[in-house]
Amino acid sequence: MNDAKLRDDEMTVDVPDRIDAGLLFIGVLRTPWREVADCPRQGDAEAGPSCRIEIAAPWPAALAGIGVGDAIDVLYWLGDARRDLVVQHPRGRSDLRGTFAIRSPHRPNPIGLSTVRVDGVEPAALVVHGLDCRDGTPLIDIKPRLRPTSGA
Amino acid sequence: MNDAKLRDDEMTVDVPDRIDAGLLFIGVLRTPWREVADCPRQGDAEAGPSCRIEIAAPWPAALAGIGVGDAIDVLYWLGDARRDLVVQHPRGRSDLRGTFAIRSPHRPNPIGLSTVRVDGVEPAALVVHGLDCRDGTPLIDIKPRLRPTSGA
Repeated sequence: MNDAKLRDDEMTVDVPDRIDAGLLFIGVLRTPWREVADCPRQGDAEAGPSCRIEIAAPWPAALAGIGVGDAIDVLYWLGDARRDLVVQHPRGRSDLRGTFAIRSPHRPNPIGLSTVRVDGVEPAALVVHGLDCRDGTPLIDIKPRLRPTSGA
Repeated sequence: MNDAKLRDDEMTVDVPDRIDAGLLFIGVLRTPWREVADCPRQGDAEAGPSCRIEIAAPWPAALAGIGVGDAIDVLYWLGDARRDLVVQHPRGRSDLRGTFAIRSPHRPNPIGLSTVRVDGVEPAALVVHGLDCRDGTPLIDIKPRLRPTSGA
């Protein structure tokens, strides 16, 4: 549990003290941002900077079939987040929203999701544009996006 | 680890024996499908049957701000999956693909992702169309989808 400071009127709950399922980190995201504070609020899959998705052993064989131009959903772990916020201020705003109505990293299971286009494929990495997390963020999953997304 | 039978030429790896991060189940998905074998290969957010996303305590307050018509990304845990497959046959097909190039439930972190439209909002539940997992599947997260998806 991270203790990032609460802002006025934000609402927390007691997070259940249990683990229902375990995640494996399967790689790492390489982005230009060293700190969370430097990251953009949302990635820009068109104009955003080039980023790399590095796949750790023993998983690189699972990239077979991914090609340049494919749209993919990238899932990653936002380990700096706090997990007890149910009502919060969106970053840089004064209104309050439920956690499930915004894409804040602070959520019961702090999983980030970006839909991006593949710009390059290497034996153990993908090159993409427009991730929005800090350098070194752990990778959880890559999936093809079946329905095309506008702007991604 | 699930031991669902391997098909010809599918490729497995030794899954690292560790947990890097822990998930909390925060609710449950109610769908018409009792068994994995009954589920559709992909959900249909337009013509699919009505499903419910039930939010467990202490999380319902996090729904504040979600409205009918919103597009949401729903993340859930596919606990029946095996986690060691890196090359596999897509369901009902004879070709082989890397796990990250298909949306099979069998993947190192068996997280399912559906993008659906909100049809109804209750104090501790959302009504949606077109989920594709079995009844009782554990919920992990709900996020608004910022970029509209065609067909969803």
